[in-house]
Amino acid sequence: MSMEELRRRLAQVSDLGAAAGLLSWDQETHMPEEGARVRGLQMATLEGLAHELFTDARTAELLERAGDPSDETEAAILRVTRRDHAKATRLPTEFVEEAARARNEAHHAWLDARQNDHFATFAPHLEKMLDLARRQADLLGYEEHPYDALLDEYEPGMRASQVEPVFADLRGRTLPLLRRIVAAGNAADYGVLTRPFAPEAQKAFAWRVAGEAFGLKPEFARQDESAHPFQTNFSRDDLRITTRVEAYWPACLFGTWHETGHAMYERGVSERWERTPVSAGASLGVHESQSRMFENLLARSLPFWERYFPLLAEAAPEVTAGLDPQTLYRAVNRVNPSLIRVEADEVTYNFHVMLRFELELALLEGRLGVNELPEAWNAKMGEYLGLTPPDDARGVLQDIHWSAGLIGYFPTYTLGNLLSVQLLEAAKKDPAIAAGVERAEYGPLLAWLVENVHQHGRSLPPAELIERATGRPLTADPYVAYLHEKYEGIYGLKAGV
Amino acid sequence: MSMEELRRRLAQVSDLGAAAGLLSWDQETHMPEEGARVRGLQMATLEGLAHELFTDARTAELLERAGDPSDETEAAILRVTRRDHAKATRLPTEFVEEAARARNEAHHAWLDARQNDHFATFAPHLEKMLDLARRQADLLGYEEHPYDALLDEYEPGMRASQVEPVFADLRGRTLPLLRRIVAAGNAADYGVLTRPFAPEAQKAFAWRVAGEAFGLKPEFARQDESAHPFQTNFSRDDLRITTRVEAYWPACLFGTWHETGHAMYERGVSERWERTPVSAGASLGVHESQSRMFENLLARSLPFWERYFPLLAEAAPEVTAGLDPQTLYRAVNRVNPSLIRVEADEVTYNFHVMLRFELELALLEGRLGVNELPEAWNAKMGEYLGLTPPDDARGVLQDIHWSAGLIGYFPTYTLGNLLSVQLLEAAKKDPAIAAGVERAEYGPLLAWLVENVHQHGRSLPPAELIERATGRPLTADPYVAYLHEKYEGIYGLKAGV
Repeated sequence: MSMEELRRRLAQVSDLGAAAGLLSWDQETHMPEEGARVRGLQMATLEGLAHELFTDARTAELLERAGDPSDETEAAILRVTRRDHAKATRLPTEFVEEAARARNEAHHAWLDARQNDHFATFAPHLEKMLDLARRQADLLGYEEHPYDALLDEYEPGMRASQVEPVFADLRGRTLPLLRRIVAAGNAADYGVLTRPFAPEAQKAFAWRVAGEAFGLKPEFARQDESAHPFQTNFSRDDLRITTRVEAYWPACLFGTWHETGHAMYERGVSERWERTPVSAGASLGVHESQSRMFENLLARSLPFWERYFPLLAEAAPEVTAGLDPQTLYRAVNRVNPSLIRVEADEVTYNFHVMLRFELELALLEGRLGVNELPEAWNAKMGEYLGLTPPDDARGVLQDIHWSAGLIGYFPTYTLGNLLSVQLLEAAKKDPAIAAGVERAEYGPLLAWLVENVHQHGRSLPPAELIERATGRPLTADPYVAYLHEKYEGIYGLKAGV
Repeated sequence: MSMEELRRRLAQVSDLGAAAGLLSWDQETHMPEEGARVRGLQMATLEGLAHELFTDARTAELLERAGDPSDETEAAILRVTRRDHAKATRLPTEFVEEAARARNEAHHAWLDARQNDHFATFAPHLEKMLDLARRQADLLGYEEHPYDALLDEYEPGMRASQVEPVFADLRGRTLPLLRRIVAAGNAADYGVLTRPFAPEAQKAFAWRVAGEAFGLKPEFARQDESAHPFQTNFSRDDLRITTRVEAYWPACLFGTWHETGHAMYERGVSERWERTPVSAGASLGVHESQSRMFENLLARSLPFWERYFPLLAEAAPEVTAGLDPQTLYRAVNRVNPSLIRVEADEVTYNFHVMLRFELELALLEGRLGVNELPEAWNAKMGEYLGLTPPDDARGVLQDIHWSAGLIGYFPTYTLGNLLSVQLLEAAKKDPAIAAGVERAEYGPLLAWLVENVHQHGRSLPPAELIERATGRPLTADPYVAYLHEKYEGIYGLKAGV
């Protein structure tokens, strides 16, 4: 009986979360601008009620009473719920409210600072975010490093001491590759990437391929436009992805397929977790492994363009005029050290992340002062990518994360990149999957992902999921090997030097 | 302090209602079809939590403690909230749940019955709806007639004994007019109404005019498509209207302007009622008076088409070819007795409503058995409109209302029609407003409506609002005079006979 009541409560909490998600989706895609003020209040109410319901005395009592059920599904739901509940109740309401207010102020200061290229405007707010992060780490608890408590929010169970050697290994083995690529010069005519491609045609082509190649269908998903692309969902039967259209048309196409990867993960989560805390991705890193796999490993592969080149030619004849799949493949895999993380390619992207991870650690430990941050940022940009940001707007102020209190979040992007290749290599041990990928037929691969990753939702800790699916812990090896093989090919370099 | 806590609670209830409204809007306009199952659960959760919060012991205590504040705004909020609270707590949870289940079954039976033209499938469910309606009336209480308790849900304070004489008066004075119009034959070439008009152009023209003529702007409103047009809103700064596009293009245009009238009412409700139960229209009848005013009194007037004919010609040259504003005006005011309420014109519409009102009363009192209903329906259709439905699907089964337990709802449509003219006549006593209406410039009229109707929200009982705004109680006189003048003109009839 108490399990039944608990399930009803969890379903209510889940429904409130889904409604808050719809309020947010609508705000980004459809809401008239004047609606923003009251919409903010409405979202705060829903989130507050969900938090209250989840953390009140009755929920604690029901979790206590539920004991240790033999049913595997119920046991998993209890395990995940108890973990969430313990974390949620460790933060006092006053702390949560203080943090929300400070984030709101920091966000506005960041917008202002970035627009006026004036880091000093943001500096005291970043100081406050770091103070809150340290206090949050103390409240949540940790064994080795306060960073671990923050990272655990996004990548359960992961520690800074595990991230560091993986990142060091990755850096040591890909920086030389990057330097060789840069020295080699252009591998294609990149003017192709800004040839005229009508906005509606971009979206329609990207959406069609999301359905045909990756299985995202209008019966359970839809595509809209928003300033920043994202994926959200209100059940596994109602997935929403957004995209944006630019003159640089790969932004719309690969962005759509990136969000498609996130959406198909949520689609694959088993129905038995419906309306419980288990019904979501295992971690941000595992989620990103799916989006990156679709966007990069699949959609930026030669077999993909051999298959979909004719469809692209139909959708945008001006784009494909005089091209063949091979040339297009080289163009969309341009490696180009640049200042902005979200525009980075497969080879340079992780350096943007490593830089942020290292700076976050130094800031949190107090080894680096906030006022010294811009200089430290620019020095690392020079070291890794050979670039000096001309201003802080295109440097330390480019990302929203720190202004939103998201410290400990960045590493998950690179963890996702690494895991994407590790998972794909494991799946391709099945010859049918490997053959499918070579023909850009992803049905068998998708089935493997559902079986080994998606269906579990949050029921397995990420480390266990990775071990079970790939037979070993997370490692940079497959990713490094993938980069070498792919880009040595594209840039005509000698293997492995 | 307790008023502050009460306001916070009411805001939460309002936010939950707005979120449920967005879930519903999204379901009708954007949601992928497979999302329906979980969406239904989510909406039920939000409505349940809102009801719980509004009716729990703490709310009762806060309402008690709030006493009798001197502040006018607080006093009005308390008055409306106490009334709602008393009604909400008079229905036991078991009754509410039984009714929800029965409505769900009745709705499916009705869909089935209508599709197969088989009234007997629906009959036992209608019986159940009537049983629930009688029990609900007893639970809510009434002085004269059980119908009053039901009507009060939609038209607070109104009684069947007040509706009856008004309807009888209306019937007695418009049935002869209708017969003279029918005898006169066509007043224009109605083929115009189905000339080719591209769907996107229909919507764009209707939306443009909603903004230019009626003040509904993209900064605080948006238009979408749905199977059945409706208006909803999540704050006065976030209004949504929907439309549908048909070969009969007036459906999109006048439907859009109808919903615009509803939306502009909500837009005009004062900010001081924000996130309280006062922030809504005074009643369904008053709401409908605004939609009907925009749709019919304004948008089906000659000055309107004299002003907007050039815009229509620009949007749809094929539609206006060879026409002038006068001819178009006659065409869009075609009077044509027909079987279907939602397709009815200004002259015949109220007969559809009167018929339903009379049958509801007879059914509720037991004077008419459910099994005798189809025959009684068809007899009245013959008496009022000279038509015999060829089947029940186009007769007694055409409306969703009874299957949804909405008994006592229909009269508000006609009350809205009557009130629309009564309000417009009152407003036009100001010469600047009258002159504006003659030039299809509605700024002064809108300001009058905000001042006399919109801003009050639910703070005034409808009868008081009507008296204050027009100087007299609701009457059929202005509407009857309006119909005579307009349609004697269009059909070339001798005045007043």
